[in-house]
Amino acid sequence: MRIVLDAMGGDDAPEVTVEGGVWAAREYGIEVVMVGRQDVLEAELARHETSGLSLSVVHASQVLEMEDEPASAAKTKRDCSMAVGMDLVKRGEAEGFYSAGNSGGVMAVALFHLGRIKGTKRPALTAAYPTREGLCVVLDAGANTDCKPEWLLQFGIMGSTYAEKALGIENPRVGIVSNGEEEGKGSTLVKEAYKLLKASRLNFVGNVEGKDIPMGLADVVVTDGFTGNVIIKLSEGLSKFLLGIVRDEITRTPLTALGGVLIKPAFARARKVLDHSEVGGVPLLGVDGVVIVGHGRSDAKAIRNGIGVARLAVEGGMLQAIGERLTDLGL
Amino acid sequence: MRIVLDAMGGDDAPEVTVEGGVWAAREYGIEVVMVGRQDVLEAELARHETSGLSLSVVHASQVLEMEDEPASAAKTKRDCSMAVGMDLVKRGEAEGFYSAGNSGGVMAVALFHLGRIKGTKRPALTAAYPTREGLCVVLDAGANTDCKPEWLLQFGIMGSTYAEKALGIENPRVGIVSNGEEEGKGSTLVKEAYKLLKASRLNFVGNVEGKDIPMGLADVVVTDGFTGNVIIKLSEGLSKFLLGIVRDEITRTPLTALGGVLIKPAFARARKVLDHSEVGGVPLLGVDGVVIVGHGRSDAKAIRNGIGVARLAVEGGMLQAIGERLTDLGL
Repeated sequence: MRIVLDAMGGDDAPEVTVEGGVWAAREYGIEVVMVGRQDVLEAELARHETSGLSLSVVHASQVLEMEDEPASAAKTKRDCSMAVGMDLVKRGEAEGFYSAGNSGGVMAVALFHLGRIKGTKRPALTAAYPTREGLCVVLDAGANTDCKPEWLLQFGIMGSTYAEKALGIENPRVGIVSNGEEEGKGSTLVKEAYKLLKASRLNFVGNVEGKDIPMGLADVVVTDGFTGNVIIKLSEGLSKFLLGIVRDEITRTPLTALGGVLIKPAFARARKVLDHSEVGGVPLLGVDGVVIVGHGRSDAKAIRNGIGVARLAVEGGMLQAIGERLTDLGL
Repeated sequence: MRIVLDAMGGDDAPEVTVEGGVWAAREYGIEVVMVGRQDVLEAELARHETSGLSLSVVHASQVLEMEDEPASAAKTKRDCSMAVGMDLVKRGEAEGFYSAGNSGGVMAVALFHLGRIKGTKRPALTAAYPTREGLCVVLDAGANTDCKPEWLLQFGIMGSTYAEKALGIENPRVGIVSNGEEEGKGSTLVKEAYKLLKASRLNFVGNVEGKDIPMGLADVVVTDGFTGNVIIKLSEGLSKFLLGIVRDEITRTPLTALGGVLIKPAFARARKVLDHSEVGGVPLLGVDGVVIVGHGRSDAKAIRNGIGVARLAVEGGMLQAIGERLTDLGL
């Protein structure tokens, strides 16, 4: 299997991307195709022990930067590493693509170079959300601000297929974010989407309230990209805030400070639950290719794990399954 | 000053409501008018030392229960404690009203018995959200699921006036929840409301992302009732989840468990930051009367504090100021 790594994407690229790519090739026994400035990548690669590994470099003269406006950069930077990498997937020269770069950029370039899966109304960004039960998939996590009910149904189908085929969750429980548990609660959008989800073949568990998400009441949490973005960013900010208060309070007296030293490993494990680098990446669903997006602040382990996500999605036949299920429902 | 206490509202009414009411009368030197079943309330009152306090009981034969469907109960239970209490405010026999009962019920009864402030499109529920800077006011916290841009402008005006007049925050910073910081980010609703807020006399600080709310980047956070509900409930669930993980991890080894014992006071203080009973109550804004709503799980201290919020809102002249500002803007 060949997975493309956008070696120029991410805050600490290409150092950590190359390191993560080498690690992934070793760990998973797959070929990692690094795309970016050839001289830069070869210099980075020379710093690693790579004998026996399947690694290759494909040159791309441009980089879609974090600051770039996605839609216009996707048009003007035709030779950026994302575009060159996705073209490899398009031509069948690789099976999956991973980038920790500008996620709006990945979306724009993917729409341009890979297009949508037949039948898909809108692609969705997903997020891996830590819960008491493990992880749930939240989508749309920010790609589509204003949504239509049928799009939310499709997000449910795509998210459920990803959870099943790449994460190995059998018959994933699909819920829709609402402002009340009972059927009939919700905005006009949610009430309409509820009906479509209920009538589908999905394992639809109904409305989930905000508090139900961290409790793990659903494996796939469907919402519009506006609400999804608020959910993800609020959770990020609140986690930081809460762990910050506990930390501040602990340092207030010598006795609690001593306690703080003793619980350090517990704190570290708690943080690990919330650590995005454990996940590595999440799929852009609805585009016609396996495209996995990582966090801009990814370290080498996150890059390795993100490539691992691409590998699982390819192995599970996620793309084909999504196409079949969307067609199956006549959408 | 006379504040009405819905003595039948709340999970532990009338025990804790009466206790909290007595406490408020003593603490603030105001008259507390307890509304509910006269015999029940007098029996409760007899258990407290009340000499020298301004306390009175007004009989109401019915109770709007937690399980009641708000709109229909507001119509059928004309003699419930909420209705009788608000009628006292309506007739000028009391200046403010507090209830820890069914908050949808309080809203429905208030619309029925007090009506809206002239010019108000929709009343809003508020929430007091703990931040790094103290507290911010989030509204609408759940009353209006689908909103119009002008309603969000009004929420900003009402929330800002409450923050200034009752919470003593000078020139409150008003932000609108969006899925990006920059102007131009947001749903159609948010983009339209942004323009109105920017053109108003409010101290509008622009878009706030989910992560900015706990950081305290705004004193007043404007949003529709759907998103507001998700924000509040997600924060509740996530706080429980996070503190739960830390607690679980702490009990895993004897050393961390010892550390856990030592940091107990720090944990207690951290929890205090998040404790709704410290706030006691939040206003229902837009109805023609000072109406404060408390959490169903309120204890006596929360009831006391909630009555204190009503007192501050009355003292600050919040209601009149809202009326003037809404008119001023020609809405």
